[in-house]
Amino acid sequence: GTTRQAENKIQKIQFNDQQEEFNKLPTKAGPRPLSHSVSQSSPDTFSSDAVGSVSSEDESPPQEKPQKTSKGLTDFCIKNIKQAPFGRKEIDIAQQGMPSLMILRKRAGGEKPLAGAKVVGCTHITAQTAVLIETLAALGAQCRWAACNIFSTQNAVAAALAEGGISVFAWKGESEDDFWWCIERCVAADSWEPNLILDDGGDLTQWIYKKHPSLFKKLKGIVEESVTGIHRLYQLSKAGKLCVPAMNVNDSVTKQKFDNLYCCKESILDGLKRTTDVMFGGKQVVVCGYGEVGKGCCAALKGLGAVIYVTEVDPICALQACMDGLRVITLSEGIKHADMVITCTGNKNVVTREHFDRMRSGCIVCNMGHSNTEIDLTSLRTSELKWHRVRPQVDHIIWPDGKRVVLLAEGRLLNLSCSTVPSFVLSVTAATQALALIELYNAPAGRYKQDVYLLPKKMDEYVASLHLPMFDAHVTELTEEQAQYLGISKHGPFKPNYYRY
Amino acid sequence: GTTRQAENKIQKIQFNDQQEEFNKLPTKAGPRPLSHSVSQSSPDTFSSDAVGSVSSEDESPPQEKPQKTSKGLTDFCIKNIKQAPFGRKEIDIAQQGMPSLMILRKRAGGEKPLAGAKVVGCTHITAQTAVLIETLAALGAQCRWAACNIFSTQNAVAAALAEGGISVFAWKGESEDDFWWCIERCVAADSWEPNLILDDGGDLTQWIYKKHPSLFKKLKGIVEESVTGIHRLYQLSKAGKLCVPAMNVNDSVTKQKFDNLYCCKESILDGLKRTTDVMFGGKQVVVCGYGEVGKGCCAALKGLGAVIYVTEVDPICALQACMDGLRVITLSEGIKHADMVITCTGNKNVVTREHFDRMRSGCIVCNMGHSNTEIDLTSLRTSELKWHRVRPQVDHIIWPDGKRVVLLAEGRLLNLSCSTVPSFVLSVTAATQALALIELYNAPAGRYKQDVYLLPKKMDEYVASLHLPMFDAHVTELTEEQAQYLGISKHGPFKPNYYRY
Amino acid sequence: GTTRQAENKIQKIQFNDQQEEFNKLPTKAGPRPLSHSVSQSSPDTFSSDAVGSVSSEDESPPQEKPQKTSKGLTDFCIKNIKQAPFGRKEIDIAQQGMPSLMILRKRAGGEKPLAGAKVVGCTHITAQTAVLIETLAALGAQCRWAACNIFSTQNAVAAALAEGGISVFAWKGESEDDFWWCIERCVAADSWEPNLILDDGGDLTQWIYKKHPSLFKKLKGIVEESVTGIHRLYQLSKAGKLCVPAMNVNDSVTKQKFDNLYCCKESILDGLKRTTDVMFGGKQVVVCGYGEVGKGCCAALKGLGAVIYVTEVDPICALQACMDGLRVITLSEGIKHADMVITCTGNKNVVTREHFDRMRSGCIVCNMGHSNTEIDLTSLRTSELKWHRVRPQVDHIIWPDGKRVVLLAEGRLLNLSCSTVPSFVLSVTAATQALALIELYNAPAGRYKQDVYLLPKKMDEYVASLHLPMFDAHVTELTEEQAQYLGISKHGPFKPNYYRY
Amino acid sequence: GTTRQAENKIQKIQFNDQQEEFNKLPTKAGPRPLSHSVSQSSPDTFSSDAVGSVSSEDESPPQEKPQKTSKGLTDFCIKNIKQAPFGRKEIDIAQQGMPSLMILRKRAGGEKPLAGAKVVGCTHITAQTAVLIETLAALGAQCRWAACNIFSTQNAVAAALAEGGISVFAWKGESEDDFWWCIERCVAADSWEPNLILDDGGDLTQWIYKKHPSLFKKLKGIVEESVTGIHRLYQLSKAGKLCVPAMNVNDSVTKQKFDNLYCCKESILDGLKRTTDVMFGGKQVVVCGYGEVGKGCCAALKGLGAVIYVTEVDPICALQACMDGLRVITLSEGIKHADMVITCTGNKNVVTREHFDRMRSGCIVCNMGHSNTEIDLTSLRTSELKWHRVRPQVDHIIWPDGKRVVLLAEGRLLNLSCSTVPSFVLSVTAATQALALIELYNAPAGRYKQDVYLLPKKMDEYVASLHLPMFDAHVTELTEEQAQYLGISKHGPFKPNYYRY
Repeated sequence: GTTRQAENKIQKIQFNDQQEEFNKLPTKAGPRPLSHSVSQSSPDTFSSDAVGSVSSEDESPPQEKPQKTSKGLTDFCIKNIKQAPFGRKEIDIAQQGMPSLMILRKRAGGEKPLAGAKVVGCTHITAQTAVLIETLAALGAQCRWAACNIFSTQNAVAAALAEGGISVFAWKGESEDDFWWCIERCVAADSWEPNLILDDGGDLTQWIYKKHPSLFKKLKGIVEESVTGIHRLYQLSKAGKLCVPAMNVNDSVTKQKFDNLYCCKESILDGLKRTTDVMFGGKQVVVCGYGEVGKGCCAALKGLGAVIYVTEVDPICALQACMDGLRVITLSEGIKHADMVITCTGNKNVVTREHFDRMRSGCIVCNMGHSNTEIDLTSLRTSELKWHRVRPQVDHIIWPDGKRVVLLAEGRLLNLSCSTVPSFVLSVTAATQALALIELYNAPAGRYKQDVYLLPKKMDEYVASLHLPMFDAHVTELTEEQAQYLGISKHGPFKPNYYRY
Repeated sequence: GTTRQAENKIQKIQFNDQQEEFNKLPTKAGPRPLSHSVSQSSPDTFSSDAVGSVSSEDESPPQEKPQKTSKGLTDFCIKNIKQAPFGRKEIDIAQQGMPSLMILRKRAGGEKPLAGAKVVGCTHITAQTAVLIETLAALGAQCRWAACNIFSTQNAVAAALAEGGISVFAWKGESEDDFWWCIERCVAADSWEPNLILDDGGDLTQWIYKKHPSLFKKLKGIVEESVTGIHRLYQLSKAGKLCVPAMNVNDSVTKQKFDNLYCCKESILDGLKRTTDVMFGGKQVVVCGYGEVGKGCCAALKGLGAVIYVTEVDPICALQACMDGLRVITLSEGIKHADMVITCTGNKNVVTREHFDRMRSGCIVCNMGHSNTEIDLTSLRTSELKWHRVRPQVDHIIWPDGKRVVLLAEGRLLNLSCSTVPSFVLSVTAATQALALIELYNAPAGRYKQDVYLLPKKMDEYVASLHLPMFDAHVTELTEEQAQYLGISKHGPFKPNYYRY
Repeated sequence: GTTRQAENKIQKIQFNDQQEEFNKLPTKAGPRPLSHSVSQSSPDTFSSDAVGSVSSEDESPPQEKPQKTSKGLTDFCIKNIKQAPFGRKEIDIAQQGMPSLMILRKRAGGEKPLAGAKVVGCTHITAQTAVLIETLAALGAQCRWAACNIFSTQNAVAAALAEGGISVFAWKGESEDDFWWCIERCVAADSWEPNLILDDGGDLTQWIYKKHPSLFKKLKGIVEESVTGIHRLYQLSKAGKLCVPAMNVNDSVTKQKFDNLYCCKESILDGLKRTTDVMFGGKQVVVCGYGEVGKGCCAALKGLGAVIYVTEVDPICALQACMDGLRVITLSEGIKHADMVITCTGNKNVVTREHFDRMRSGCIVCNMGHSNTEIDLTSLRTSELKWHRVRPQVDHIIWPDGKRVVLLAEGRLLNLSCSTVPSFVLSVTAATQALALIELYNAPAGRYKQDVYLLPKKMDEYVASLHLPMFDAHVTELTEEQAQYLGISKHGPFKPNYYRY
Repeated sequence: GTTRQAENKIQKIQFNDQQEEFNKLPTKAGPRPLSHSVSQSSPDTFSSDAVGSVSSEDESPPQEKPQKTSKGLTDFCIKNIKQAPFGRKEIDIAQQGMPSLMILRKRAGGEKPLAGAKVVGCTHITAQTAVLIETLAALGAQCRWAACNIFSTQNAVAAALAEGGISVFAWKGESEDDFWWCIERCVAADSWEPNLILDDGGDLTQWIYKKHPSLFKKLKGIVEESVTGIHRLYQLSKAGKLCVPAMNVNDSVTKQKFDNLYCCKESILDGLKRTTDVMFGGKQVVVCGYGEVGKGCCAALKGLGAVIYVTEVDPICALQACMDGLRVITLSEGIKHADMVITCTGNKNVVTREHFDRMRSGCIVCNMGHSNTEIDLTSLRTSELKWHRVRPQVDHIIWPDGKRVVLLAEGRLLNLSCSTVPSFVLSVTAATQALALIELYNAPAGRYKQDVYLLPKKMDEYVASLHLPMFDAHVTELTEEQAQYLGISKHGPFKPNYYRY
């Protein structure tokens, strides 16, 4: 209730006229997309980390509370430095799920590819991002960090980061003023001039662009992960105002495949089971959209014996669905017999009231796509229909004749609302971010101009290679003769840019 | 803590020297195997239904509290009749997940195949069993009912049953004395002589056998669902003391397939995700045992891209695994690279300390088999290993060198502990029970002697047919000519008894 | 033409009043069910082995042509002893595809479990059966052998067997008189009294039963592989005339699974591709029947992206199809959109003229079931429909409006007519036969009475174990403690008889 | 023998210094890539169409034999106009497998989008291309046609085309001189000036470019299908000599997916079964390369229960293999246990003598990649190894110790050598070609410059849409509101150019 209102309000302030883009945001829809962590489930710490709650033990604003690490450092602002040992434990566990960053540290050996780099960062602050931040530090960077979301900070992790020497300014439940105050503290400090930005959402970038224009011009580069942030960068670039090279890490091949195809394949069953305990065998499921997300959902559902129907707008994707053994129909044709409807289109009003009116009782409706507009909820907010919240994230919408439709997460992203993001996906993202920073920092002059770049294919391949040891996978090395035959380097990149993986 | 001790104690009393059989029980290991229901998750009723808790509002023993239904009935004993409306809502929802029983009611039409039947029952009392009980009543039976487990009763459901006219004696948190008192109240009542038993666990049967021997002899039949109860019946039969026909509904084809193959296929992923958020793609999983349970687990894991290895003792099952594309190895061979080990053997000490010592850090170990002995836990209870409970049902066992093995549900059944049983499975069981009662009650004299019987194949087929409408499935009817060609009746049974489905 | 007439004639003679049973024969429908062999495809021998042809080079009847092996043996009658080296090459290659028999020889070590056994055999004479016969000899048996089919003998193989010392009486293209003459020569010989029969079809058994009754009574046992032969044995047994123990090897678990589920899974795609070059992706296929054969077909088709519909009579199998993700419909519902119809029912007239009339043009119809009656061909032999043979085994049936239905193998078994049986399946059968002979020969008096027996489960398991090395599969050995816990022997049998694999 | 030498010779002449590119050619390696047709299998016409044979009945050169159609036309040169009725029957049947072109004709309605177009074509002349040519004619084009391969012409089809009014110059078994003579006759004719080229291989284009430069400059466009031809066009373009717009139809999305992923998925099992009758269940298969071809092969093999290992050079593809549940190893690691090795890399010497020496006996080796260099055959042509041809396309290579390795198609493309291309793939190609011609002919001035273009995405989508009716697939139409939301047209194109399908 209040939490959500606050969330809405601050977003309105931050993004003002960008409402529409915000709706498409995959990663920032709220505090839930984060990976499960020890502290979230551990009973003793649950209350202090619960969504939106503020620990009752300590109500004084962090800004007013002087704290010190065991080594006497004070250049940070967090909830409670005493939580550091617990946060360290979480970071330790998170490291096990993100071996790629540990390999990166090891492969660097004694070298410090980020020696001299001064990174100002603004991301979620969780055990996983802590592993990233400490990796940057291990590679030689100096870091100052703020949170990109007012609710998502894990306080114990922030404490452990501070205790470890990172200047972090973040706590769970910041006000909007706190939010900008923290960012400013990261940017402006004595004897500190950042030369790299790592951003997730574009708020930090925008702040520096607007408030510290001279500093902005001196940056060596920006690394941005979110769709919104990238949208903003492209707008800046178009307007001729982007005077720094920026790296779009969102659209790297590896990240895209993991964020969409594999991540959705892993989470669709989980999201449905946790909310509805539905049995999949023999269920008739309509999957709207057969892009990467739809392909992932269909693959998982097929594995458990669902009967799948696909709706598609694009005949090429439709033909792929056919060849993959799925019937392609219109939603109107399939709605009558559907046990579940899953939207994965990125479009709006894909499921309308007309469809709802023709569903059978018990039909489950949910959204795995890129926006909460896919299901036309407005049409369901009418007086003759009753909404009954039966569990968190599960509403029964009841027709006058007793028919019930089961709506999940009020049409928001099911996998972010009712499931977890595998730490492997976070690992891919974090490794991509680290490599993008290294590339921008070390690139010879002239390689990157004042534009938005995709991660070089070789870096993309390197991110992939960092994750292969988790699977005991061994790639084959080209012989000189073979490399020559193919006309490529032995060490990659192995494919032309237009290659479709 | 106390709850589990109480549980252990009463079981000791009930089953005294049958400890070992109890360990093999698939369905009664505690209050958790029950399907998710509205009341369990609905915030307003959670506390009153939470495991082992006793509502604080009303501490007086139900026996001492006179209650009355709206129609003035008093022949029942439950927690609180005022909860009836809420329980009714749950039963209404449960009906939607168990259409087979609703079809059974409808197909009976005006006929009352159980007219004159007096059924005394002892089962879990949940929304799902309520649908069964009310189906029996709708088919003409008079029913009196007790709970087979002191913790599993959903009080609101019991209230709704009572309000509906069923004489139910059960509440959550009975003492052992309460337990037997309730059973006795079901058996002995004025102008009531039961002629059919529906039992789950054998306690009711044993009580009548011992305390009401003359009544026992007059019964038309017993329907028993649990492995333990059936074991007891076979022992009675061997000893020549079973003077009533009994129906073993546990081993019907339909129920077996759903309890093992399909149920495990549905729940293995869910159990692992809810507890560990593990990503399945590319994970190396050793599945110990390739019976129905192992086959179900492998099918589900393959669908999500796991790399599966199977261990088997039986060369026939091993050969099946080979032909299904799975590598058959010994656990010793595979343990070093395993990301997960899942036991499905029904055997003991399948995973030993020696195996644990060779696992890689992060390896997940769990049990889907028929007993909690598959994993040798005793060997892990040594001083050099540290156990760390990171979430409910999840322990990290930590080696001196920091290696962690993730143990789920302390080696108990993962799908019962950390997942839910799909209501479809409960529906199959309930329909099988109802049909078994109808068969025993209506069978011509002499069809059943004083022995334990399997459900007749035709009934088994009928249970299956009751579930086909949920899938919009249409079976084909044989022509007379075809039936003659095959030498069977048009209406089944369609297969010889030895047929392997 | 003439060939088929001859085939029909001799069958009429052999089986006279058993026409109907013959129709159900899975393995003896003609000369095609055999596995591909070198000689069949090698250009130089093709003509001499082509179906029904008789080599022009040598027209004198084998009976009249005295032949001698290199060691001077003459007790055999075959086409041409000079072909022996080529036949030996084929046997060598066949041995590589049947390692189970080679393992059996090796495991026997110096022991001769069949020492003293005198086996008279009547089977197809091919490179694969040659490996079996020579295995029996290696295990100590004396063997005399005839062919069970007048067309299927591979002459070069027969020559190699003779050269190796086996008394074989068989050639390709026997007349009916030849057929019985060969059998008689195997049974009756100087200083030879067979004590074991290995039969495939029952002709040899019937011959001995009728013509040599005193010899019949002295047999230690009969091993029979074919459905027809087993049907005859059960009839004999029912009539009280079976005075010898007989082993039904057809119904062993291992053989059944391989003959049905796995064999059909392997061959359905192959049979369809070789005849029609059809693309499977997205094709709508109706599979009639979801027993083992239908399950195998569906599994293979699903793997290549077909959209599968199942028709079923039995609600239990129908429910399995549902849970496996297949829509269960009636043929009438699905026929309009079907691209292929595959019958796997064992029933008659499953596809009728009414269905044919409603098919779309181009629909492919074929049979994988147990008889050629599944498709009602008679209804298609009418004047308004034109049959056009477009390739061997492929007919286009053309409707007056130009619609074409593609009928394969004239409704006979597709996998036997248009595909090959994997040598692995033949290996399973051969190993089962060898073990059955060993068991019957070595069983202590009284273990087998005058009845028809299934292969003991332990033997069944042993057959399976012989095939595991081909898959590098390693079974796990039970510890003493585990065996005791399960109440079974460490060495099996591991499952009760009623176990469903 | 002689045939292949002739083939090699003419290719040497045609492509002289382009040897290497030729090796990569997927579609033109010989006369076998063609789809199965009635005439190829029909017994009565087999000899006249058999590969490389020349009908003995009529040895006079077609050039010297005056022929006339039933309507008196003489402007063509083929083998025998009397074969026209039979060729027509084949074209009729081919039309059923290529509904997309028929739909294209129908959708055009009365309109003639190619009215005025004068197309000179040079492709294989088969029933399928005949459907294409007649479609172009039906859409208004005048056509003259030559064969792109001296062996692949189906004479009866050429006759039917001529009888139907197309000026075709082609016969099976042309000499090199004939080949160029036919091309010249297509280009130069009275009152004929071609304005469009449809080429497959680039020979026609090169001929016009060199011999008719003034005509070349006046062309409206070139449509080229083959990899070689496109390579030549890009070279011409680079050299600044391409003065006409050219359309690369080889790299359209739809065609690529069908030529690689789906086509290989369909044909790998078929190619292996037809040559070796191998059983797939449980076989250990090493697939070298996990691009589209490798992905297709793996998907098919997994469906039949093979155990698959993948080798990869590119870590991104390796990671995909991992996530898809396949073990990624080096060939050296896996070779010892492999039952099959399948190359799909496009690279050279992927399987070397060192690997061959470590294979187990019976291992099958074949190539599905883009060149015959993947397997190092040279290393096997040594005196100590014996080659034994056991069937067409199957060699046993025998080691001194008796080990046999089974090599298929001498390392050439398995699916072209030992399987068939589904007509659906040919249909996609043909529709793409037709649309490219329409686009080039009707494009407003300036849309295409003197360059090589990919098919516009909208056309690509249109090709896909033409094939959906075969699957009864119904795409969903965007509402105006939705199209606006997505910022695209209701009628496509639906995806940005960089989209990965």
